[in-house]
Amino acid sequence: MPIYTPSPPASLLTSSPIVPLITIALVIMASARRAAAGRNQLPPPIQRFKYSNRVVLKSILDREDKGRAVAGQRVVVGGWVNSRKERADVDDAPFPTPPAEADDVRLGEVHVQYVPFLRPISSIPVGGDGGAQAPAAATAKDKHIIIHLLINDGSCSSNLQLVMDSSMSIPGQVVTVGNSILVEGVLRRAWTGRKRVVELIVEKILYVGAADLKTYPLAKPQPSLLFLRDHPHLRPRFITIGSVARIRSNLTCACHAFFGDLGIIHVHMPIITSIATGTQSQRFQVTTLLNASDQGHVDLEVFKAAVQEKRSRIEKLRRGGNNKEALVAAEEDLEKSKQLVRVLEERQKTATVYVGEVKLSEDFFGRAVYLSTSAGLHLESYACALSGVYTIGPVFQADESQSTKKLAEMWMVEVELAFVELEDVMNCAEDLLRSLCYSLLATAGNDLKFASKQIDSDCIKRLQSITSRPFDRITYSRALHILNQVKDRSFLTEAVWGTNLSEEHESYLADDFFENPVIVYEFPKDIKPFYVRGNANRMTVSAFEIIAPKASVGVLVRGSQKEERLDVISKRIGEVGLPHEQYDWYMDLCRYGSVQRSGFSLELDKMVVMATGITDAEDAIPFPRARGNAKL
Amino acid sequence: MPIYTPSPPASLLTSSPIVPLITIALVIMASARRAAAGRNQLPPPIQRFKYSNRVVLKSILDREDKGRAVAGQRVVVGGWVNSRKERADVDDAPFPTPPAEADDVRLGEVHVQYVPFLRPISSIPVGGDGGAQAPAAATAKDKHIIIHLLINDGSCSSNLQLVMDSSMSIPGQVVTVGNSILVEGVLRRAWTGRKRVVELIVEKILYVGAADLKTYPLAKPQPSLLFLRDHPHLRPRFITIGSVARIRSNLTCACHAFFGDLGIIHVHMPIITSIATGTQSQRFQVTTLLNASDQGHVDLEVFKAAVQEKRSRIEKLRRGGNNKEALVAAEEDLEKSKQLVRVLEERQKTATVYVGEVKLSEDFFGRAVYLSTSAGLHLESYACALSGVYTIGPVFQADESQSTKKLAEMWMVEVELAFVELEDVMNCAEDLLRSLCYSLLATAGNDLKFASKQIDSDCIKRLQSITSRPFDRITYSRALHILNQVKDRSFLTEAVWGTNLSEEHESYLADDFFENPVIVYEFPKDIKPFYVRGNANRMTVSAFEIIAPKASVGVLVRGSQKEERLDVISKRIGEVGLPHEQYDWYMDLCRYGSVQRSGFSLELDKMVVMATGITDAEDAIPFPRARGNAKL
Repeated sequence: MPIYTPSPPASLLTSSPIVPLITIALVIMASARRAAAGRNQLPPPIQRFKYSNRVVLKSILDREDKGRAVAGQRVVVGGWVNSRKERADVDDAPFPTPPAEADDVRLGEVHVQYVPFLRPISSIPVGGDGGAQAPAAATAKDKHIIIHLLINDGSCSSNLQLVMDSSMSIPGQVVTVGNSILVEGVLRRAWTGRKRVVELIVEKILYVGAADLKTYPLAKPQPSLLFLRDHPHLRPRFITIGSVARIRSNLTCACHAFFGDLGIIHVHMPIITSIATGTQSQRFQVTTLLNASDQGHVDLEVFKAAVQEKRSRIEKLRRGGNNKEALVAAEEDLEKSKQLVRVLEERQKTATVYVGEVKLSEDFFGRAVYLSTSAGLHLESYACALSGVYTIGPVFQADESQSTKKLAEMWMVEVELAFVELEDVMNCAEDLLRSLCYSLLATAGNDLKFASKQIDSDCIKRLQSITSRPFDRITYSRALHILNQVKDRSFLTEAVWGTNLSEEHESYLADDFFENPVIVYEFPKDIKPFYVRGNANRMTVSAFEIIAPKASVGVLVRGSQKEERLDVISKRIGEVGLPHEQYDWYMDLCRYGSVQRSGFSLELDKMVVMATGITDAEDAIPFPRARGNAKL
Repeated sequence: MPIYTPSPPASLLTSSPIVPLITIALVIMASARRAAAGRNQLPPPIQRFKYSNRVVLKSILDREDKGRAVAGQRVVVGGWVNSRKERADVDDAPFPTPPAEADDVRLGEVHVQYVPFLRPISSIPVGGDGGAQAPAAATAKDKHIIIHLLINDGSCSSNLQLVMDSSMSIPGQVVTVGNSILVEGVLRRAWTGRKRVVELIVEKILYVGAADLKTYPLAKPQPSLLFLRDHPHLRPRFITIGSVARIRSNLTCACHAFFGDLGIIHVHMPIITSIATGTQSQRFQVTTLLNASDQGHVDLEVFKAAVQEKRSRIEKLRRGGNNKEALVAAEEDLEKSKQLVRVLEERQKTATVYVGEVKLSEDFFGRAVYLSTSAGLHLESYACALSGVYTIGPVFQADESQSTKKLAEMWMVEVELAFVELEDVMNCAEDLLRSLCYSLLATAGNDLKFASKQIDSDCIKRLQSITSRPFDRITYSRALHILNQVKDRSFLTEAVWGTNLSEEHESYLADDFFENPVIVYEFPKDIKPFYVRGNANRMTVSAFEIIAPKASVGVLVRGSQKEERLDVISKRIGEVGLPHEQYDWYMDLCRYGSVQRSGFSLELDKMVVMATGITDAEDAIPFPRARGNAKL
């Protein structure tokens, strides 16, 4: 297996059928870069962000030359403070190299190291206003307090270390974890432990945005991903979530690049649709008729948090012990807040909307409409005109199980290709997966390294293995045969022809038997939708699934060749008990100039889970939606 | 104004601030192409589509060498037939050049030219089965019937002409308009009128998908865009709709390229949200509680179409006149169908869902949730962590007016940048617009030429003008001053400080006064949302709008610097009467490490309208959603 290097050699992919335009483009760009480097014998200079005078940290920290070319440069940088340390320094000379640290400060998720080496933050004197209480003596003494801040601006997983004198603090304010900061200074190279890093000697503070450490959720020592889900608007500042977001962005853009190179056209499919699929309870209906009052809508958590805060305050007053009056007042206040929470909780539980008889003709669209559960059928209609089309967008499913695992709003990459048969579309799906993994390895190295350190140490190896050899392909029947031959372990459910493979079956095939992604194809007719093309044997249909190995995501891709014969599709619609008139428009595709066509869909959220090794899809998407959870 | 050429000179954009990575990338790619061309002294060869043996028509028809390099090559092509002509030919030699045509067959929207030169189609003999009635004599005679088919595969706006002998037809079938066809043959250059074209001499028919011309909606002579909206699943085969779809795809992908070059991160924002904005009646609520029967859901149009078909059949029987029995039966049948339509219509009108009291806590998300009306606030939370983020996705608005003009499901490009102030974000928005127009001019030439011929002759000139000079920038107050100075015309509404500019005001500024896109900024506080940053004068806020000229789309972009001061935003939320507790999460962004930040949103649908000149946004999106309209 090839070893991962920041710019993987072209040979990494030559065994696969994917060599094409992406590789060519990369080669062109690499050679252009080499040519430019050859001319000046210098690595690329720092580039400031085009719409401010700020330099993004990625261009300082994510460099092959480890900062050699940027040392000595004056720059403006900004970001959010992840860690603060300070120490007294007797030397008046230029700022010293920071102390050695056990952690890798470039990559580690560092939070709440704000406890100063010498004193509690509250006693750090501040200039200006604060100076009134701490007179000249203190100022002189504090001249040599050196502060080290680690900041991150979300452009990469690395933090930049700012080195500054405490006298620089903005009057009345201590710059600490959770603050935003914009500074000007000079870059220099330094050693942290045994690591070479680039740090910034701050010369001017341009802006500081305060944060109350007592209530700032990310100031909690090592907040868990589960805890962070309660704060979806703040959690991207947690580097793990930021890394996952960048990998998700990379994957999405790599999809566009893959299809763009092939000349496949991007189309926007509808979210609201009048096509009802699945059972009623699995559908989200969209309406303007619930003229509800918003009584139930108050965010209880805010009020609960207030109660908690008041409790802490009382605790503090009690410890202080000398302000009885304030304590009594605070206790009364707390009681009121608790009462309010109780009332609100009750109201939330019983909040009702009286609707009575809803006339669908009076609804906004004059009929029942739903959130789309799949763009597939609509997309086919565009494939039957533009030949090759794809879409990237959300689909919705009100999962009947009470499981919160499954996202109710999932992002899918869906593709339909006209004049294309099953085998070809399997090739396309395999190439897409391989190309996405390749793109991550080639351009998201920093974030992948972070993920392999903080989330899943196998994630890079997994991506490399996907790009390194062709996927295995077996029919559903052969898969059953393999599963039924297994002697050295027992499955909870037996693999019986005509039923779906279970998670443990999938895992056995990909993880143990092949140790490779597996494409299973030719499924029994009854476990696949009506639009999948029937085979001559009348028992199986031209569907396929791709199972990813060692990622516990199971099936990543589902696809099929579509039924193009009018008589067959019409019969199938009847067989599965769907109303013909609802699918009459779909049958038009077979009625007027039908063609052989095939397509597939890739679950983007699962792809992010697979690539990063993050265990829950709720952490792979910015604002997850699941049963009982629609935060913000 | 520079004249448009297929590869616009680099100088086209040098006056603007956009020279950056896109240009560099284009230059690299162009030089690579030139280098390759220089080596072989040959234009690029035909490439077959990677996942079939088919060659896409774009690679044959959309070439700078007008087909010189591809003549003589054997290829497989597929597509849908837009036109059929035939003529008898006395010469037994290789197929002749087709007859001269007045229209430009490469670009014109050609439909229903299926009337043969010599005889009605019904009398064209077919091989095999059909041969039983028309014996050997006819077959011999028909050996020299030459058929010309124009086919399109959706890869470009041009049609390819297939030249074939009628004896090739598949037994029992006449290949005509609406059919799909997959053929193998040899390309050759020919003259059509005074135009050089490439045509294909068909040697083998590989597949034909039939279409019933009598019911095929696109077989109508010159179907209007309005008519086609009733057939959203078939209309992309109409070349105008296909062209618009390709331009939309180009614009979307150019957005990704623009932001990717800047290192701005793509994030997926939620569709379902618990944040309620606007009035209750403007919101789409999402629920699983309407356990409705689907009685009202039947697609009436299908039944109405059946009635229409039966009427035509009766008409035909009447003209035939000799089958009284069949006529009576048909009339009875018609009556039944009409009755069914009446019943269904009645049921649809009164279809009710009895809901009674809805307990929000029992709904899927345990609370009231809505379709997102803007990703802006959510996006800001990611900007306050990842610094630069964008999203492309749908937003929803149940427009209160009965106007069907406004889409209920609109696609928006939304951007938020941290550490960025108003002027910088205006630069970014201007660069984006310019870059999108540039991308279209550089890569969608064929479709733009088609649009300028069939839709709006000014569209290319408009795009060129946007790329050719900086936008004008004026404050709202200055805009009012200009409008109040106008003497030579009167406006329906007066331009009064504190009110929104009307459409005619916007049009006057961009079309008449500046003849250029205009950025209006610094708006009165009361006509902008609460989150826009207040100016020192306490009367205006840091918002801006970009008005596109000569496109009657009005405002294309809306943006602003956001309020980063906690005390100010808190006061504003109170002033506009919003519930504080609902926006407490949003205030967290100012509470914990607030930064200056700015963003904007671009209406993608309007951008497509502007670029193509198509008059209605319902034709700019595949499946439009508007009041009373949610087809498919």
